[in-house]
Amino acid sequence: MKVTEKLKKLREIMNMEGCDACIFTTADDHGSEYVCDHYKTREFFSGFTGSNGDLLVMENIAGLWTDGRYFLQAEKELEGSGIELFKMGEKGVPSIKDFIISQKSIKKVSLCGRFISAERGKTYKKAFAEAGIEFDPYFDPADKIWGDERPSKPCNPVRALDIRLSGEEYLSKVEKVRDSLRNKNCDGIFITKLDDIMWLFNIRGNDIPFNPVALSFAWITAKEAVIFLQKDSCTGEILDYFEKNRVLIKPYEEAYGFTESVRDLKILMDSSNTNYDIYTRLSVMNESVEGELPTENAKCIKNETELANLRSVYLRDSVAVTKFIYWLKKNIGNIHIDELSAADKLLEFRKEIVGFNDLSFETISAYGPNGAMLHYSADKDNYSVLEKQGAYLVDSGGQYDGGTTDVTRTVTLGDISEEYVKHYTLTAVGMLSLMDAVFMEGCTGRNLDILARKPLWDIGIDYRCGTGHGVGYMLNVHEPPCAIRYKSGGKDAILKPGMVITDEPGVYIENRYGIRLENVLAVEKRWDNEYGTFLGFETLTKVPLDKDAIDRSLMSSRELELLDRYQTEVYDLVSPFLSPDEREWLYDETH
Amino acid sequence: MKVTEKLKKLREIMNMEGCDACIFTTADDHGSEYVCDHYKTREFFSGFTGSNGDLLVMENIAGLWTDGRYFLQAEKELEGSGIELFKMGEKGVPSIKDFIISQKSIKKVSLCGRFISAERGKTYKKAFAEAGIEFDPYFDPADKIWGDERPSKPCNPVRALDIRLSGEEYLSKVEKVRDSLRNKNCDGIFITKLDDIMWLFNIRGNDIPFNPVALSFAWITAKEAVIFLQKDSCTGEILDYFEKNRVLIKPYEEAYGFTESVRDLKILMDSSNTNYDIYTRLSVMNESVEGELPTENAKCIKNETELANLRSVYLRDSVAVTKFIYWLKKNIGNIHIDELSAADKLLEFRKEIVGFNDLSFETISAYGPNGAMLHYSADKDNYSVLEKQGAYLVDSGGQYDGGTTDVTRTVTLGDISEEYVKHYTLTAVGMLSLMDAVFMEGCTGRNLDILARKPLWDIGIDYRCGTGHGVGYMLNVHEPPCAIRYKSGGKDAILKPGMVITDEPGVYIENRYGIRLENVLAVEKRWDNEYGTFLGFETLTKVPLDKDAIDRSLMSSRELELLDRYQTEVYDLVSPFLSPDEREWLYDETH
Repeated sequence: MKVTEKLKKLREIMNMEGCDACIFTTADDHGSEYVCDHYKTREFFSGFTGSNGDLLVMENIAGLWTDGRYFLQAEKELEGSGIELFKMGEKGVPSIKDFIISQKSIKKVSLCGRFISAERGKTYKKAFAEAGIEFDPYFDPADKIWGDERPSKPCNPVRALDIRLSGEEYLSKVEKVRDSLRNKNCDGIFITKLDDIMWLFNIRGNDIPFNPVALSFAWITAKEAVIFLQKDSCTGEILDYFEKNRVLIKPYEEAYGFTESVRDLKILMDSSNTNYDIYTRLSVMNESVEGELPTENAKCIKNETELANLRSVYLRDSVAVTKFIYWLKKNIGNIHIDELSAADKLLEFRKEIVGFNDLSFETISAYGPNGAMLHYSADKDNYSVLEKQGAYLVDSGGQYDGGTTDVTRTVTLGDISEEYVKHYTLTAVGMLSLMDAVFMEGCTGRNLDILARKPLWDIGIDYRCGTGHGVGYMLNVHEPPCAIRYKSGGKDAILKPGMVITDEPGVYIENRYGIRLENVLAVEKRWDNEYGTFLGFETLTKVPLDKDAIDRSLMSSRELELLDRYQTEVYDLVSPFLSPDEREWLYDETH
Repeated sequence: MKVTEKLKKLREIMNMEGCDACIFTTADDHGSEYVCDHYKTREFFSGFTGSNGDLLVMENIAGLWTDGRYFLQAEKELEGSGIELFKMGEKGVPSIKDFIISQKSIKKVSLCGRFISAERGKTYKKAFAEAGIEFDPYFDPADKIWGDERPSKPCNPVRALDIRLSGEEYLSKVEKVRDSLRNKNCDGIFITKLDDIMWLFNIRGNDIPFNPVALSFAWITAKEAVIFLQKDSCTGEILDYFEKNRVLIKPYEEAYGFTESVRDLKILMDSSNTNYDIYTRLSVMNESVEGELPTENAKCIKNETELANLRSVYLRDSVAVTKFIYWLKKNIGNIHIDELSAADKLLEFRKEIVGFNDLSFETISAYGPNGAMLHYSADKDNYSVLEKQGAYLVDSGGQYDGGTTDVTRTVTLGDISEEYVKHYTLTAVGMLSLMDAVFMEGCTGRNLDILARKPLWDIGIDYRCGTGHGVGYMLNVHEPPCAIRYKSGGKDAILKPGMVITDEPGVYIENRYGIRLENVLAVEKRWDNEYGTFLGFETLTKVPLDKDAIDRSLMSSRELELLDRYQTEVYDLVSPFLSPDEREWLYDETH
């Protein structure tokens, strides 16, 4: 079915329901960053496949809102659909909300409240009410038009984690959640965020690409613990596990009905992490108390078991990446290597690691100018062949029993320019400087970001993204609330020992090259003294930096010391796992 | 009259008015940082003279709340008064509000709403209402008890600034305020903050110690501009000035009555910068729209004229400080110098400068261990004599026609320890590193603070205060909203070209020594390019650092370059104003 035809059918339904405008987002009921195909309604109705975008359909016009990463792709994909592209962030481009309000003819806006956050839903409701527009959050026509072609919801087995992987029993975690409820004078919490549910119950699933989570909801009170799961995802073993832990299992499909049966309670709600439908159902007969998810704040602090497992997993993952770099440098120019086959080769190395389950995100395998595109993704129809010149950027990670990894290296394949060397060196200095940070308890990533950017800012270069994001443990590779960025807005968690975060400065020169270096760090305590508590970072990633790309004359003696210390440590820890050839090469690279 | 006697009389009045608890703060109607004697009711009733503290009086108990700076002083000053000291910030010490609520017998709390911010008043009102306590914000018994002894309100002549000093006419400034009102869909604003009123009307007064401001209020709408001034502070000249600018003058005393006559308007109100009494009067018959004072945000960005005058004033002020340092180093051990006479001598040097009007705050003149006390103040009964050993810290500034200055240097007088040299060096490195910052537009002081602290944090030392505060132009030496600090809380203004801010890291070792180095910086634009706008700092202060106290082996080559560049610049700019002896010494000190 063509997009134009889908839109025609959609407009017929809209007409019948008296709806003048409807919005499709890309989201599931859980606000997941990645969604499975079943939920890709915006893609279905528009043809646009980017990860971020909202579709607005009205009687005579349809528009797609997306950000700068996707302007070119969206223009291509929307061709012939009659859908207009609205470039978010460009001057004079209204938001989808303001655009609707400016259209005088609109009397009713519809969407599915399950696929937007309560925060966004409340903003829409207020703004549309002020503009005299009816807001209907129960519009979900996808099934009717998509029909049998619609991919079903994934439903994969749920497994419970051994204490050697989780480090803390569910019963201990749930008591902490209950403490939070008591502290906020609340009776219950309804959790919709999948990684928080997995963390709390010490379970993992496989329903979302790259994220080992199961479709689920959870309801916790002082006495009750209920998990909503798809029946077919529950093995006998998991049923026993929940029974043993006194957790009641209910069918996933009954979650919405359940929320309507909750009455006369004070409910802790995080509007940014709860879908609008759940939020409104719970708000009807209960008092809602706005507050952060206690699970989100607990989950980001990794316990001793998790940290020990992470150290081991990051070392093994680093060995795989190091072997891959050696393989690349040795074979480039001799055999055919392209962006896809390189990513496959790296995956092969990872698959050799005991405990490897999956990638933690789609590998960014980018040769030459492709590296300058922040969210480049090669595919069968569009990829480059690697040559013995310039550089290759690879950003990848794995899901293991024992941790989630994320690492980026930019690898010299042949001739490189003096300017490239300068940019690589300053990127490395930025990464090393942040690794070396010592800071007082109370700091957030906003206080530290400048350490990574300073060498680049000093020469008038910036990268248009944060310096770092939190990383989950056997969970999502992007895990709020901890982050390292300089701009305000968004969450800004105070850094605490046990948090795990990336350190990934870069230089992106359009049409020429991209450089990104990414290590993963764990916050650790350094000293307690009369001034307070000082923190620092432990570096989990042990992958060499590219000796050929570093100009030591641009570095201070302190920076050289940091570089040499890191490189030596990489050699000492990684070399025992290498072949003699690999080991010899790594020695040269790091000494 | 003894404190106990004053409290007895106070309790009689409380009894008559049915008030169980009353609070005295140290503030005037304008939320001023420094207040004149007339407003020191908390000091009058308690005997405690510190700059921060609240007094609570109940039937059987009286308590004084103050912070760590004043614990020792308060204990001494409260002796025999029967007033209990509540150490703010210490574990288990309740806030004044929570303490009142915990006293089950309290039915009514009284204070004078003119002397607290609307923000605090609203918090009190809500908390007391929830606890079933009546809140009376119209209790001001000071006159009845203080009687004829009470110092009168200061009332000094108001003067208008020449355009060569202000750089922008009042009529241009007021139009910008009106633009802000329009943008926020507001009809008017009632300004109570004195420095904002002075800035807006291009006038100055002399009613508050160290702050060249006049007691006043202002009311601005699209068509009206009203200033409330004490009649006797208005010379014929100033009356002409206001008439020419179509500003209506009303008596200062009529401001409160006036606010009751304002009706049916949308009024822009900054709760943290408006007193509670004014706020509630205005709120009765009008709609209040919470928002930042447009004057505060405009005033902190100095215009080209102000910046040019500041450059000139800071150079002249730096010459005075440099001459003072030379005088000190030459005479120490030969003549009697104590903390008071040293401060007097520095004042003498400043008085020689054309355009000098006053100090911008009470000089901190601290020898040896006294330097370790952040808010040390020597007085006739308590001062140290300077000797030819250790170090002397002097933090001082002037009010000039053309600017307000603030500078700190720590001066070696004789033998110093290796540790002192290390701490001085790292403090200097911190100050120089912040001076050298290059950063993207959008950064606040929170992003930059670590540059000044890093050398100290790296060795486990911190200073318990911000790194920098905004500085007024011919106004208050502490001028929000711009600031450099790492902790969240408080205002956190985005740094913009023209903002003037201090850079003052330090090391404070109790009972041994204090080191603080303070330069004043102006934000300036560096480059506009594809990444955005890059900013940096221009250093206004040109006072040498102490060569003897710097260990160059602890500094990187970049840091040495910054030091040498600064010292050379100081010599080049300051030496033309020095005597041959002074010049020779300065050459040695800076080369």
